[in-house]
Amino acid sequence: LETPNPTNMQKVLVLGAGSWGATLAHLLAEKGHNVRLWSRHTENADRLGRERTLPGKLSDFHINGEVTIGSDLESLCEGANLILFAVPSKHLREIAHQAQEVAQKHLSEKPIVVTASKGLEVGSLKRMSEILAEEFNSGSPVALSGPSHAEEVCAGLPTTVVAASENLEAAEQVQQLFMTPRFRVYTSQDTLGVELGGALKNVMAIATGAATAMGLGDNTLAGLVTRGLAEISRLGVAMGAQPLTFAGLSGLGDLVVTCTSDHSRNRRLGMELAGGATLEEAVQRIGMVVEGVETARSVEALKGRYGVEMPISTQVARVLFDGMPVADAVQSLMLRDPKPE
Amino acid sequence: LETPNPTNMQKVLVLGAGSWGATLAHLLAEKGHNVRLWSRHTENADRLGRERTLPGKLSDFHINGEVTIGSDLESLCEGANLILFAVPSKHLREIAHQAQEVAQKHLSEKPIVVTASKGLEVGSLKRMSEILAEEFNSGSPVALSGPSHAEEVCAGLPTTVVAASENLEAAEQVQQLFMTPRFRVYTSQDTLGVELGGALKNVMAIATGAATAMGLGDNTLAGLVTRGLAEISRLGVAMGAQPLTFAGLSGLGDLVVTCTSDHSRNRRLGMELAGGATLEEAVQRIGMVVEGVETARSVEALKGRYGVEMPISTQVARVLFDGMPVADAVQSLMLRDPKPE
Repeated sequence: LETPNPTNMQKVLVLGAGSWGATLAHLLAEKGHNVRLWSRHTENADRLGRERTLPGKLSDFHINGEVTIGSDLESLCEGANLILFAVPSKHLREIAHQAQEVAQKHLSEKPIVVTASKGLEVGSLKRMSEILAEEFNSGSPVALSGPSHAEEVCAGLPTTVVAASENLEAAEQVQQLFMTPRFRVYTSQDTLGVELGGALKNVMAIATGAATAMGLGDNTLAGLVTRGLAEISRLGVAMGAQPLTFAGLSGLGDLVVTCTSDHSRNRRLGMELAGGATLEEAVQRIGMVVEGVETARSVEALKGRYGVEMPISTQVARVLFDGMPVADAVQSLMLRDPKPE
Repeated sequence: LETPNPTNMQKVLVLGAGSWGATLAHLLAEKGHNVRLWSRHTENADRLGRERTLPGKLSDFHINGEVTIGSDLESLCEGANLILFAVPSKHLREIAHQAQEVAQKHLSEKPIVVTASKGLEVGSLKRMSEILAEEFNSGSPVALSGPSHAEEVCAGLPTTVVAASENLEAAEQVQQLFMTPRFRVYTSQDTLGVELGGALKNVMAIATGAATAMGLGDNTLAGLVTRGLAEISRLGVAMGAQPLTFAGLSGLGDLVVTCTSDHSRNRRLGMELAGGATLEEAVQRIGMVVEGVETARSVEALKGRYGVEMPISTQVARVLFDGMPVADAVQSLMLRDPKPE
């Protein structure tokens, strides 16, 4: 937890200068690491480098003056021993491919690669760390996940996350790298479970947003969170994850924060749908990509592939893609046959 | 889910006419069962029998006219095949003892006994179903638990709970008895896990109340809920419970509702303590028994007996019983050694 000395000071390249990438770059620079932050858009990088703020995304944020900000991957990559991806999930493969080419050309040793992006690749249904493993031809990328609104991390509010890798040593290096008295990092070796939790929670956030907008109360919300986590766990276990991972920070923790926070776009989408909007209208009103929509489609494919029953996700998909009214979806969840828990 | 006919109509005695007992009695009567509701205080029973409302406890509540309300255990007991306890945990043993004597005298068959009370007996650290098993000399009481504010059940908002018994058949009878299109009951055979979740959540509610009052944000809340559930699970598993029970409705579900709801007295206690009140002042201001205080003391004894580390409960106990400032407790949680999840 001390300021790094020359022997443990790391050179870190952060890819993606949205609120999460900028927050993590800032946190590492505050700890004394050598940090470079890359944005694919030159004008964004220039503005952020000059003004050091993210207006409209993070209020009262002023990124540490030691962070080098730019859009030239080759120069920023120099000497990096860790590359952190914080880009939208749909851009991860393309950016990872670019980064790998630059790394191979400029770095003498293979860097540790870390994903702070969450989601599943459309079509292939692959997780972010699987994409990094393929692109970097490395078996041990690390996934960083957990309940962590960027605004609150910037404000120094206590936050707990998990660093997962099949390679425990890599996870521990990431733990050491990020840990501060306000940002506590646990390790896990269940990358699959950690990443599924982070991705699938968005489908449940659509459901809880809809329930909240219908005035359904705290009992319903707690029931949706709990039974939602149960079906995420069922799918995860069928895919080979550890059941207890879903009771952890990247499962339960991230689910709780997403399903109760007004910041969540997925939750807002559910609220719009409950108000009678079509999917197109709802997405248009939110005006940004809502990841849970694509994830709901991916879950439909996964549940078939692994033969798992996922009643809440199924109802979300019916509302999203078949125009089923939200009230009918709630009704059909409550009227299922009596079951063991 | 249909109205009972003479062959499946049950005679149910509900003990305890607080908001939860009255709500469950009402729910069963609405389903067409023959329900009697007992209050130990004659004047309470008379008033409730006359006015059919619970002012100050449940607004807009009017108990079903078919519920027989009284304070004479002997007459209410007649023919009952199920006795449901919804009394404060500290009165359970005494009332169970009385009820058993009356049942033995008046009932030809042993009734199913069910606890909707939550907590641990002071000193003995026994669970509510253990007390019922001892007093009724029966191995299979049923525990009914889960995220279920009485106000919301009365308002017909969708609610999900779990009925747990080592005797699966008894749990299934209780499931059938209570299930409605708005009150969904799952079964479990892990009574130990179900009851521990319901009792220990109150300690975590004190912690989250304190964190909220200190302005610590959603990341911290989600972290406390998750790591709190992890330590409840650790203790439960050491005691012999199933780990997945804690990810269920009586664990996670009840924890989420208690840690986020403004109705919780335990949460309010934490808020008072964070504001600088002593335990005595805080309890006095709330003006009702706060169960988490005694439970925190019981957890201190249990964690020693089973050799389990429970960092959040430990800090809650220090704040409650040693006058440690809340800020120091938060600090010491965040500064623990790096750990695997």
